[in-house]
Amino acid sequence: MRVMYLAEMLGGRVVGEGLRRIFKIADLEHAGKYDIAYVDDEKFFAAAAESKAWCLIVREGVEDKFPDRTLLVVKNPKLAFARVGSTLSPPSHREPAIHPTAVVAETATIAPRAYVGPQVCIGDNTKVGDFTRIDAGVVLGSNVTVGDFCVLHPNVVLYDNVSIGSSVILHAGVCLGADGFGYVRDDQGYYWKFPQVGTVVIEDDVEIGAHSCVDRAALGRTRIGKGTRLDNMVHVGHNCDIGERVVIAAQTGISGSVVIEDDAVIGGQVGFGDHTRVQKGAVIGSKAGVLPGKIVRPGVWWGIPVQPLDQYKRMNAHMNRLPEMREQLKRLEAEIEELKKRIKRD
Amino acid sequence: MRVMYLAEMLGGRVVGEGLRRIFKIADLEHAGKYDIAYVDDEKFFAAAAESKAWCLIVREGVEDKFPDRTLLVVKNPKLAFARVGSTLSPPSHREPAIHPTAVVAETATIAPRAYVGPQVCIGDNTKVGDFTRIDAGVVLGSNVTVGDFCVLHPNVVLYDNVSIGSSVILHAGVCLGADGFGYVRDDQGYYWKFPQVGTVVIEDDVEIGAHSCVDRAALGRTRIGKGTRLDNMVHVGHNCDIGERVVIAAQTGISGSVVIEDDAVIGGQVGFGDHTRVQKGAVIGSKAGVLPGKIVRPGVWWGIPVQPLDQYKRMNAHMNRLPEMREQLKRLEAEIEELKKRIKRD
Amino acid sequence: MRVMYLAEMLGGRVVGEGLRRIFKIADLEHAGKYDIAYVDDEKFFAAAAESKAWCLIVREGVEDKFPDRTLLVVKNPKLAFARVGSTLSPPSHREPAIHPTAVVAETATIAPRAYVGPQVCIGDNTKVGDFTRIDAGVVLGSNVTVGDFCVLHPNVVLYDNVSIGSSVILHAGVCLGADGFGYVRDDQGYYWKFPQVGTVVIEDDVEIGAHSCVDRAALGRTRIGKGTRLDNMVHVGHNCDIGERVVIAAQTGISGSVVIEDDAVIGGQVGFGDHTRVQKGAVIGSKAGVLPGKIVRPGVWWGIPVQPLDQYKRMNAHMNRLPEMREQLKRLEAEIEELKKRIKRD
Repeated sequence: MRVMYLAEMLGGRVVGEGLRRIFKIADLEHAGKYDIAYVDDEKFFAAAAESKAWCLIVREGVEDKFPDRTLLVVKNPKLAFARVGSTLSPPSHREPAIHPTAVVAETATIAPRAYVGPQVCIGDNTKVGDFTRIDAGVVLGSNVTVGDFCVLHPNVVLYDNVSIGSSVILHAGVCLGADGFGYVRDDQGYYWKFPQVGTVVIEDDVEIGAHSCVDRAALGRTRIGKGTRLDNMVHVGHNCDIGERVVIAAQTGISGSVVIEDDAVIGGQVGFGDHTRVQKGAVIGSKAGVLPGKIVRPGVWWGIPVQPLDQYKRMNAHMNRLPEMREQLKRLEAEIEELKKRIKRD
Repeated sequence: MRVMYLAEMLGGRVVGEGLRRIFKIADLEHAGKYDIAYVDDEKFFAAAAESKAWCLIVREGVEDKFPDRTLLVVKNPKLAFARVGSTLSPPSHREPAIHPTAVVAETATIAPRAYVGPQVCIGDNTKVGDFTRIDAGVVLGSNVTVGDFCVLHPNVVLYDNVSIGSSVILHAGVCLGADGFGYVRDDQGYYWKFPQVGTVVIEDDVEIGAHSCVDRAALGRTRIGKGTRLDNMVHVGHNCDIGERVVIAAQTGISGSVVIEDDAVIGGQVGFGDHTRVQKGAVIGSKAGVLPGKIVRPGVWWGIPVQPLDQYKRMNAHMNRLPEMREQLKRLEAEIEELKKRIKRD
Repeated sequence: MRVMYLAEMLGGRVVGEGLRRIFKIADLEHAGKYDIAYVDDEKFFAAAAESKAWCLIVREGVEDKFPDRTLLVVKNPKLAFARVGSTLSPPSHREPAIHPTAVVAETATIAPRAYVGPQVCIGDNTKVGDFTRIDAGVVLGSNVTVGDFCVLHPNVVLYDNVSIGSSVILHAGVCLGADGFGYVRDDQGYYWKFPQVGTVVIEDDVEIGAHSCVDRAALGRTRIGKGTRLDNMVHVGHNCDIGERVVIAAQTGISGSVVIEDDAVIGGQVGFGDHTRVQKGAVIGSKAGVLPGKIVRPGVWWGIPVQPLDQYKRMNAHMNRLPEMREQLKRLEAEIEELKKRIKRD
C-alpha cells in the first residue's frame, strides 16, 4: 500500500515520497526496503535516523530530525503504527467451509461464510455467525451463540448456552461457561454443589488470552463488556460483571460476584475477593490483593491489601526507615540514662 | 415437581399449597410462576416478600414474615435450595453411545451405559465406568481407570495409568498425570529429569475446575481425597496428598510432596512450598504463602509468610502506626534536648 | 539391566553382585526384588538399610554402612538414580505412523519415523522431525517447525510460524505463539491491537509444563533457550528472551520484553514487570514481585518488591520487633515525664 493512502486512512500527512509502496511493518532495527516503522519516544530518534525503514511514522513537529526521509506525520505514531499493522497484517483468512472431520449437530446453524475447522464439535441449536473462524479442536456446546467476524483459536471450549458477540477473539484453550465454584456444606461436612445454571455473555469486540476461564453464573449471567481485553490465564468467577474497555493482565483471579466498571485497568496476578467493586477508571497494580466486599475508587491502587499508591509508597518508606528508628530509640534511651545520672549527681 | 414432594425429600415442612408444581430454581429477583427461590439472610426478607417466586424456601420461625405465600420450611434454606437445584437441573444427560469419530483402543473397556463423545481418544487397557460421560476432545492414555457416574468435560487429558473414582467431575482442560517438576543438575549445569513414573489417584466424588493440573508422582502417587473440590487453574505438584472434603480456590499452587489433611479450606492464589503440611481443619486465606516444610496447624492463617490471622492483623495495625511512632520519636528527641538544656542551665 | 552395566554407564563402582539384573527404579520403602533405589541424605540411611531394594546407589565413603548389600557407588547418587531412571523407564514409545483421523496438510512434511496421533491437525508447510511424537488432539498451525525426538502431549497448540528445536517436551495443553498482550488506546478509549506478528522460538532440549503459554513477539521473537525447564501454567509474555538452563516453577508470570539470562532459577508464582532483566545465575524466591525495568543481579532475591534475601530477612526481623519498639517508646516517654517532674522539683 502506498504511503499516501496510509496517510489518508490515518488522517496524517506525508513528507517525502508519498508514492512509495509499503508491504509490511517492522521495528526500527530490522526494517528495510518496503517496511514501515514508527518512532515516538525521543530516546529512539537516533536509532530511527539510522533505520533503513522505507517510511517512518513520526509525530508533528519532529520532521526536521529526519531530513531526506519519507515520513508519515500523525498525532499518535504508535496508534498509527498499530492501525497500519492491522491493515497490512490482517489475521490469516480462511475460505468459508465446514471441514469434513467436524461434527456439527443437525440443528446447528452455521452462517454461509463461516469457517469450521477440523475436529470441531458443535452442539444442538448452536449458531455461528458470518466470517467467523472456528479453528481445529474447538468444542461448542448446545444453544451456544457466536457472532460474526469472531476468531476462536484451537481447542477453545464453550459450554452450553454461552453467548458471544461479534468480532470476539478467543485464544487457544479459552474456556467459557464451566461451573462456578459454589458449594453448601451439610452437617456431615459434605459439599453440595450450589446450582450453577446461569450463563456467560461476552459482548462485541472482546479479546481473551490463551487458557483464560470465565465461569457461568450460579443464576443469571457472568458478563464481559464490549471492547474489554483479558490476557492469558485470567480467571473470572461466577456472576462477575466486567464492564467495557477494561484491561486485565495475565494470571489475575477474580472471585464470584465482582463488579469491574468501565475503563478499569488491572495488572497481572491481582486477586479479588468476592463481591468487590472496582469503580470506573480505577487502576490496580500487579500482584495487588483486594479484600472481599471492598470498593476500589478511581485512582491508582497497589499492595496487599490494596491501598492508594501514594499511601503504599509512604508505608514502604516508613518500613525502610525501621533500622534507623531502632538506632534512634537506642540513642534516646542512652541519653535518658545519662540525664538520670546527671540529675542524681546534682 | 410438587412442593410437597420436595419437602419430603428435604425433610422439610410445607406452608400453603403443597400441590404447586415447581419446574426450576431462580433467584428472588427473577423468579416467577413455577419457580422456587430461597431466602436465609434477614437483609433479603424484603426482596423475598416482593419476589414473584411460586414457592420460597425459608428457615424455621420466619413463616409469619411471608403471609399468604407458599413456603418450604427447612433447617438450612441455602442447602435445601442447592439440593432442589441438583434435582431439578441435573447435568445434561447423554444417551449411552460411542461416537463414530472417537478412537477407542481395542483393549479398552467402555461400560455399556457410558457415553463417549466425538473426537475422543481412549488408549490401551483403559476402563470407563457406567453412566460416565466423556465429552468431545477428551484424551485418555493407556491403563487409565475412570469410575461410574463421572463427567469429563471437553478436552480433559488423563495421562497413562491415572485412576479416578466414581462421581468425579473434571471441567474442560483439566490435566491429570503430567510429569512432576523434578530435575537433578549435573556438573555441566544440565538438568536431568528425576524419574516421574508414579501416578495420580483421584478418589470418589471429587470436582476439579477448568484447566487445573495434578502432576503424577515421581515414585508412588499423587492423591486427591474423596469429596474434595478444586477451583479453576489450581496446580497440584508431584507426590502431594490432598485429603477428603478439602476446598481449594482458583489459581492456588501446591509444590511437591505437600500434605493437606481433611476438611482444610484454602483460598485462591495461595502458594505452598514443598513438603508443607496443612493440618485437619486449617483455613488459609487467599494469596497466602507457606514456606517449605512448614506445618500449618488448625486455625485461620493469613499473609506471606502465613501467620495466625490475629497476629497478622496485629502486625498490620503496628505497621499502620509507623507514621505515628516516628512523630513520637521526634517529639521525645526534642524533649530530651530541652531537658539537657535545662539541666545545663541549672 | 545388570548392575555392572549401570555402573559402567554412570562411571561408578559396584560393591557386591554386579551381575544382578535391575528392572525398575523405586523408592526405599517400596523397592523389592529387581528394583534399584538410592540414598544420599544421611537421615535416610536407616531406611536404606531396611530397604528390600535389589541394589542401592550410594556415594563414596559410606559403603560400610550397608554391609552385605549390592551397592552402586557414585559421586552423585540422586543424579545417578535419575540417569538410571531415564534408561529403565524411557517415555513410552510409539511406532512411526500417521493416524488415519489426523488431518495433515499436503504441503506439510512429516519425517518417516515420526508418530502423529489421532485427531491431530497439521497446517501448511509445517515440518515434523524424526522420532518425534505428536499426541492426540495436538494442533500445529502453518509454517511450524518441530525438531527430532520431541514429545508433544495431547492438546498442545502451536500457532503459525512457531519453531521448536529437538528433544523438546511440551506437556498437555501447552500453547505457543498466541498473540502478546499489547494495545494502543485511541482518543475514544478504544484499544487497538498493537501488531503481534513476531514468532516464538524454542531451542533444543526444553521442557514446558502443562498449560504453560509462551506468546509470540510483537515484532521479532520470543525465545526459550536450550535446556530450560518451565513448570505448569507459566506465562511468558511477548518478546521475552529466556536463556539456557533456566528453571521456572509453576504459575510464574513474565510480562513483555523480560530478559532472563542463563542459569537463573525462578520460584513459583513470581511476577515480572515488563523490561526487567534477571542476570546470569540469579535466584528468585517464590511469590516474589519484580518491578518493571528492574535489573536483578546475581544472588538470592525475595519479596514484593524483590530485595536481596538477607535484606528481606533483616526487614522481617525489624517488623517482628515493632511491638517491642512501641513498648520501648512508651517507656521512654514515661521516663522523660519523670525526669521533667524531678527537674521541676529541684
